[in-house]
Amino acid sequence: MLLGVSSVSDLQALRDRMRAFAAERQWHSYHDPKSVILALVGEVGELAELFQWLPADSARELALDEPLRTRAGEEISDVLLYLVLLADVLGIDLAAAANAKLSEAATRYPPGINP
Amino acid sequence: MLLGVSSVSDLQALRDRMRAFAAERQWHSYHDPKSVILALVGEVGELAELFQWLPADSARELALDEPLRTRAGEEISDVLLYLVLLADVLGIDLAAAANAKLSEAATRYPPGINP
Amino acid sequence: MLLGVSSVSDLQALRDRMRAFAAERQWHSYHDPKSVILALVGEVGELAELFQWLPADSARELALDEPLRTRAGEEISDVLLYLVLLADVLGIDLAAAANAKLSEAATRYPPGINP
Amino acid sequence: MLLGVSSVSDLQALRDRMRAFAAERQWHSYHDPKSVILALVGEVGELAELFQWLPADSARELALDEPLRTRAGEEISDVLLYLVLLADVLGIDLAAAANAKLSEAATRYPPGINP
Repeated sequence: MLLGVSSVSDLQALRDRMRAFAAERQWHSYHDPKSVILALVGEVGELAELFQWLPADSARELALDEPLRTRAGEEISDVLLYLVLLADVLGIDLAAAANAKLSEAATRYPPGINP
Repeated sequence: MLLGVSSVSDLQALRDRMRAFAAERQWHSYHDPKSVILALVGEVGELAELFQWLPADSARELALDEPLRTRAGEEISDVLLYLVLLADVLGIDLAAAANAKLSEAATRYPPGINP
Repeated sequence: MLLGVSSVSDLQALRDRMRAFAAERQWHSYHDPKSVILALVGEVGELAELFQWLPADSARELALDEPLRTRAGEEISDVLLYLVLLADVLGIDLAAAANAKLSEAATRYPPGINP
Repeated sequence: MLLGVSSVSDLQALRDRMRAFAAERQWHSYHDPKSVILALVGEVGELAELFQWLPADSARELALDEPLRTRAGEEISDVLLYLVLLADVLGIDLAAAANAKLSEAATRYPPGINP
């Protein structure tokens, strides 16, 4: 017997937390698309700064150690949170859209070619 | 008997699809962090281009209509997919990191202040 | 008799050409700071795309050859033109500001430390 | 009589100062194109952060006052300096390239159309 099972995806859970976060602070009026994209750009910039001067060949390994590991996780998270917010502002189902895009990419880039 | 909430991770599902996508094309060697961040920047740029000249006040409404709605969903998805890839390359649990960051933000920005 | 250095401002010349370009098209109303920054982000994205999958060690050499050389020059130029436009919109003397910033950087980063 | 006149453009002067700056610190090995683009992205992010939550309609006016005026000038300068460095690393004459791009844009976008 299956009782009271609700299935919540992690992207939807993040969206719901972002909604509550914005509602508690009455920040809705700030969240027009252009502003949210600029905020996203700010976080992408912080992510880039973490890696900019690292040797390309060892950047991955260096990021397995602290403090870079935690810092990278924070900045990637900030980008994700603004992306989730932007999708919500625009009424886009992020998981569905990303899966559709990946299916399309699989068709457009057949195995055997370079990126 | 199963009671309660079952959680579906669309972020893990996207990560797994990205892993399979890269493996089928043997693209692993391209996916050092600096390259993936630059690819992410490229997609953020395409997202910005969709909105750059729209009036800030009506951008949200304009994006509810086609073709902008679909285009925005595609570019947001591209950013998400590179973000999922980057987290995977760095061994970061994206959902856990984003939830932790959001909890920290809730502490840092108490309700009542502006962003 | 004229002795010494005469200075030619290509930044002012570009600013004047951008002003004339915008005036002929009556594009002033589009050029609020947030829109121009998003346009700049779009061009930075195109620049990043040119280099994203190149091996870091040979990217410089690869960009000495066509067609990458011309493409890189075009995208760098697009970024510069929006930067010149943004400075003009904000009433900032770009050459003076950049020279001041460089003088400050010289103080902040004494020779002998890493970036 | 004209003696010893050398004409130095402001973009060339910035390039020469950046060269000297890098040489004094022995930073040449850091300045591969992908690293410099990531550094540029970092500065674009800081620029975006200054404006992200400002109302689009009053952002320009707000940036005429301090402290935003100085902060904006600093971040625009940082973007410019990395752009000058990138062009130099790639052997691109930035003023010539930007003027060529602007001439091309004038052809591509005849007066009377929107951006």
